[in-house]
Amino acid sequence: MVKVLGIDPGLANTGYGVVQRRGGRLAALDGGVIETPADMAVERRLVRIHQRIADLVLEHEPDAVALEELYFGQNARSAFAVGQARGVVVLAAGQHGLTTHGYTPQQVKSAVCGTGRAEKDQVQRMVQALLSLAELPRPDHAADALAVAICHANHAPLTAAVAARRQAGRAVAG
Amino acid sequence: MVKVLGIDPGLANTGYGVVQRRGGRLAALDGGVIETPADMAVERRLVRIHQRIADLVLEHEPDAVALEELYFGQNARSAFAVGQARGVVVLAAGQHGLTTHGYTPQQVKSAVCGTGRAEKDQVQRMVQALLSLAELPRPDHAADALAVAICHANHAPLTAAVAARRQAGRAVAG
Repeated sequence: MVKVLGIDPGLANTGYGVVQRRGGRLAALDGGVIETPADMAVERRLVRIHQRIADLVLEHEPDAVALEELYFGQNARSAFAVGQARGVVVLAAGQHGLTTHGYTPQQVKSAVCGTGRAEKDQVQRMVQALLSLAELPRPDHAADALAVAICHANHAPLTAAVAARRQAGRAVAG
Repeated sequence: MVKVLGIDPGLANTGYGVVQRRGGRLAALDGGVIETPADMAVERRLVRIHQRIADLVLEHEPDAVALEELYFGQNARSAFAVGQARGVVVLAAGQHGLTTHGYTPQQVKSAVCGTGRAEKDQVQRMVQALLSLAELPRPDHAADALAVAICHANHAPLTAAVAARRQAGRAVAG
């Protein structure tokens, strides 16, 4: 069993989604968006994002945090704003002893749809199907967060198996 | 009297400097660099920066935090890294009820040297002179942090005077 907190970070909208994988079955435990108004002081916006992520970590006790990475075609100014939000998300993970794993939009699309060139609505439909949701996941940021959580949840068993094999190898060598 | 914590944020090197202004006199109370090694996990690096800033706030109880803003000619990737460090600095300020004030490198140079086109060593010499330091401030990131703290300390009395005048205006109006 692995539980992943997926995050699509942003100063105005930070999407989150909690996905659990038990055997081959995936399930969504939570999902939504942390919104902060543009007229709120940046200090308060970052405190709100940090606090909500810390609350989600305490509530769900995930095994890891998966983050959607920035597409670096974006300009420096928007990268800087997203970077600030990402910083407090990664901090909240680190303060609770969790590691973070970044995935590019292409990796997420590939993991969920089988192609890095999938369209947004295709990703949403696959997230709905993989998590057996009654409706399309909304809003977009929550759907993206669930998608990156799925991406990591489906990678994690492989990573764990490799780690276990290494561990076994070291035990034999020792 | 005004006490300012100046910060030059960065993931590898975050410069800090504490400047106190009493009447027309400026003094440096602290200064240095928070370093995090490149081979340390980003979660740990951000936890270290956040913790040290929180410690500095508790130790010096500044009235405000002044930040050197990014020069947006930098590329998106470096803006993103700086953004993460800035995020946890602004968060630490917000968690202690402090406001942050950003100044561009040009504004800082202008405040310290009288011209936005000053060279780095000219800024260092002026920081040394304005703070009556026995030696040139080093390393660079600490000098930059002291410079942005001076910039804000010399702006703050004006801002406070304007606020006081507005307050007085309201009192008369009320």
